[in-house]
Amino acid sequence: MEKILVDGEWRAAEATDSFRAIDPNTGEALDREYPVSSRADVDAVLAAGLRASRELRDVPREKVARFLERYADLIDERQDRMAEAASLETALPVSPRLKDVELPRTTNQLRQAATAARDRSWTLPTIDTASDIRSMYGPLEGPVVVFGPNNFPFAFNGIAGGDFAAAVGAGNPVIAKAHPSHPWTSQLLAEAALEAVEEVGLPVATVQMIYRTSHADGEYLVSHPAVAATGYTGSRSAALKLKAAADRAGKPIYLEMSSVNPVFVLPGSLSERAEEIADELAGSALLGSGQFCTCPGFVVIRAGDETETFIGMLRERLEEAGVGALLGVGVVSGLGESVQTLVGSGAELVVGGSPLEGQGCRFQNTLLRTSGQDFLAAPEALQTEAFGNCSLLVVAEDGDQMVAIAGVIEGSLTGSIYSHTAGEDDALCTNIADRLRTRVGRLLNDKMPTGVAVVPSMNHGGPYPATGHPGFTAVGIPASLRRFAMLECYDNVRQDRLPAELRDESSIADLWRSINGQWTRDSIRPAAR
Amino acid sequence: MEKILVDGEWRAAEATDSFRAIDPNTGEALDREYPVSSRADVDAVLAAGLRASRELRDVPREKVARFLERYADLIDERQDRMAEAASLETALPVSPRLKDVELPRTTNQLRQAATAARDRSWTLPTIDTASDIRSMYGPLEGPVVVFGPNNFPFAFNGIAGGDFAAAVGAGNPVIAKAHPSHPWTSQLLAEAALEAVEEVGLPVATVQMIYRTSHADGEYLVSHPAVAATGYTGSRSAALKLKAAADRAGKPIYLEMSSVNPVFVLPGSLSERAEEIADELAGSALLGSGQFCTCPGFVVIRAGDETETFIGMLRERLEEAGVGALLGVGVVSGLGESVQTLVGSGAELVVGGSPLEGQGCRFQNTLLRTSGQDFLAAPEALQTEAFGNCSLLVVAEDGDQMVAIAGVIEGSLTGSIYSHTAGEDDALCTNIADRLRTRVGRLLNDKMPTGVAVVPSMNHGGPYPATGHPGFTAVGIPASLRRFAMLECYDNVRQDRLPAELRDESSIADLWRSINGQWTRDSIRPAAR
Repeated sequence: MEKILVDGEWRAAEATDSFRAIDPNTGEALDREYPVSSRADVDAVLAAGLRASRELRDVPREKVARFLERYADLIDERQDRMAEAASLETALPVSPRLKDVELPRTTNQLRQAATAARDRSWTLPTIDTASDIRSMYGPLEGPVVVFGPNNFPFAFNGIAGGDFAAAVGAGNPVIAKAHPSHPWTSQLLAEAALEAVEEVGLPVATVQMIYRTSHADGEYLVSHPAVAATGYTGSRSAALKLKAAADRAGKPIYLEMSSVNPVFVLPGSLSERAEEIADELAGSALLGSGQFCTCPGFVVIRAGDETETFIGMLRERLEEAGVGALLGVGVVSGLGESVQTLVGSGAELVVGGSPLEGQGCRFQNTLLRTSGQDFLAAPEALQTEAFGNCSLLVVAEDGDQMVAIAGVIEGSLTGSIYSHTAGEDDALCTNIADRLRTRVGRLLNDKMPTGVAVVPSMNHGGPYPATGHPGFTAVGIPASLRRFAMLECYDNVRQDRLPAELRDESSIADLWRSINGQWTRDSIRPAAR
Repeated sequence: MEKILVDGEWRAAEATDSFRAIDPNTGEALDREYPVSSRADVDAVLAAGLRASRELRDVPREKVARFLERYADLIDERQDRMAEAASLETALPVSPRLKDVELPRTTNQLRQAATAARDRSWTLPTIDTASDIRSMYGPLEGPVVVFGPNNFPFAFNGIAGGDFAAAVGAGNPVIAKAHPSHPWTSQLLAEAALEAVEEVGLPVATVQMIYRTSHADGEYLVSHPAVAATGYTGSRSAALKLKAAADRAGKPIYLEMSSVNPVFVLPGSLSERAEEIADELAGSALLGSGQFCTCPGFVVIRAGDETETFIGMLRERLEEAGVGALLGVGVVSGLGESVQTLVGSGAELVVGGSPLEGQGCRFQNTLLRTSGQDFLAAPEALQTEAFGNCSLLVVAEDGDQMVAIAGVIEGSLTGSIYSHTAGEDDALCTNIADRLRTRVGRLLNDKMPTGVAVVPSMNHGGPYPATGHPGFTAVGIPASLRRFAMLECYDNVRQDRLPAELRDESSIADLWRSINGQWTRDSIRPAAR
């Protein structure tokens, strides 16, 4: 049985059970056996994490930055082995994906978080000199728990992904809950993380990892008094149970749950560039076998001959494309259930709809369609997320019905509008955008949602039930760090007792501060006080 | 029966019951009779509020700013009548308090929110030109519900206070839930608010008000699909019920619940200036009869002769001070129960401890004491909030015990440390501050916590259970506006479809934006794209 990472040591779990990951290409269990941790393991990581959190307060932020960078370097050094492990466990290709796209993105996130930890601008220092009140964001007390999802073994991994980078960058230790579909990948990452922690000399429990717990122990973990906050990416049903537990205990929990990511294809754009849009849509919908949080699973289009031609183009592309393996048997069965729900709610299959028997975890590339009228009669059921290589087309009678559909979209990470480049669709576009705006975290024009750039302006978030709070983003540094932070305020506190970010004399290179309402990198001159 | 404000009209409630406010000076019911609203009233304000929220999106922000300013002007014009009404209902003095302190603070908040609505810097526009992704905070969809507390009839009133100003400043309509202890004051404010709405031409349901509902209907209100978010200031027990309902529905709720606001008086400061500190402490503890969220209800001090002398000074000051009326019979009985709990948990009365019979809602100025050891044996019971003119002194054996006490303080709005001016207490101060830092929203030096300056750097918030989330503040504009906002993101969206805040050409005077990581007021020049 493999070991868990507790307080700087790989130690045997007090396991209640064990599990093995599945090779999605064959559906067979892999060799390595991993523990299902008991409550004793949970208590152990919590106690060590709380100590680490207190120790981290006295650690120079430069050390945190160097840890993140060193960890990124180690991942780079081991990219071949890590990408192979991840490919074995997820069936995602080493290239083009795990090694050349997701892994560089992951190390880029770690390095951006290092920069944020170093330049401190993420703390939004705010100073009013007349009242001598000063505030900023700072780390929480206690470890942050990060639950990684199945679909990004690196970039959202609990021990290496965006939430991890944000929590550590903000100065918190992390308890990673590896996703049980890729425990070996997580283990390799955690080994590198621990080495980096030791080399740099951070508190050893800054990074800890367990693989799996009972549902009850998961709820215990996120609601424990020692915990600071939780970041979770995954299914809505598990998320809502964890949310209920954390909420009852007054513990922040950031959820990225599910999203249909509507794409509105407006008539002018279809007349103008149907082939191009069909290429983009099919490509985006099948990326990672459709297992992206931002997969365009829901397409709204106006009825007409051009639309029927467009649907034919899509069908052709989905039929011609290879069928990638899904991440696990649960994804295959879940997708089958979602397709059943959609069909049972009035959608018709255009292509696909069934698992590919005897080919591991594979499901036909699937497209369904329904009418705008049928959709508006059962909007909830017809927004059932079909996680995987499956999209639903809603064929609306007219522009007004497209607007009405936009008005009942539930909270989503993204919403895209394709419109005529010369403005033919502008009136309709405005009406649809008005409704989508408050329903999606990121609104796109003429672009599919699957690219999630790691830039400060990114919002990988959105209204409930896409996430648990519409004001936070899981991607985009430095904003993502502020989820794992508290607002600190100092009133009349003596200069030598203030954090460096808030002293009159600015000693941190490149630090932006809002002083008396003006953003500046300057120190406060005595005359201004 | 008085009327409720629904969709721009004062209309008769579909009442399930009625109530009258109490004159706290006499304990007698006042004349005006107010309705307890039914679910039908709740549904009516929700439906109108949702419409107003959508209409507000197309209203120029300048109009919102002018509404807030005009409303502030009307309050100023009517300050005598309003202050008299509030004094009648709360027994707080017209001067020095309602008319000359709280009312100007309230109109100042409204005017600051107007400035924020106009200059837009609260939206934190963030632009990355290389990826053409742009984000900012914008209003929510649906009305924001604001529950005002009993203790600030103006500055925290649901129809005029900080949450109201923040929600409207951010572009949301408000459903105010007036506090039933001052319905007439709230009615006068709402009349002015509606006049200002009409004069400026905002959607009439931008401001609505009901007085009271059943608990079940309150939970229905904050969890309704049409609601955007809730701001609540008041008792913890009611807050937690509303929180549970809102959490289950995935609706943001910002709570300001309760706080003991620890004050640590270090030995050197006591040797240096005991009389001065006793003056400040007694003054702060009795301000508003101790009914401030930031009342210093919990004082930690080291045992010794000087401390006994200091306790004598405090006793003397509390005995000599007048006894102000409390806000209602519930506050008197609640305070009595809290004193009982404290005494039952090992505290001794130094002075006071009983209601003043036959003098309306009055309770003796009260001071209790306990030892550090007894406190550490029952820290939860001995942190029972005693809302009103009552404080608990904890006399610690030594500095280490003071530090240990700091380590078990529960989440509080504030924490103060008094220390020797020349540095004699510095080592102890550092150790206490290290523990207090993550337990309080605002850390003060040599200052009582009752002054809450309305400046951008203020944090009137703190870790649970002081509030529901440690990253938000209820006071301090513009940060308080971001509670009632969502993160909007635009990816590849055409210039003419972007909000003004995010276009290349900056058309808003004084707008700060973070462009490619640099804060600036400049437009984006074509070369930079």
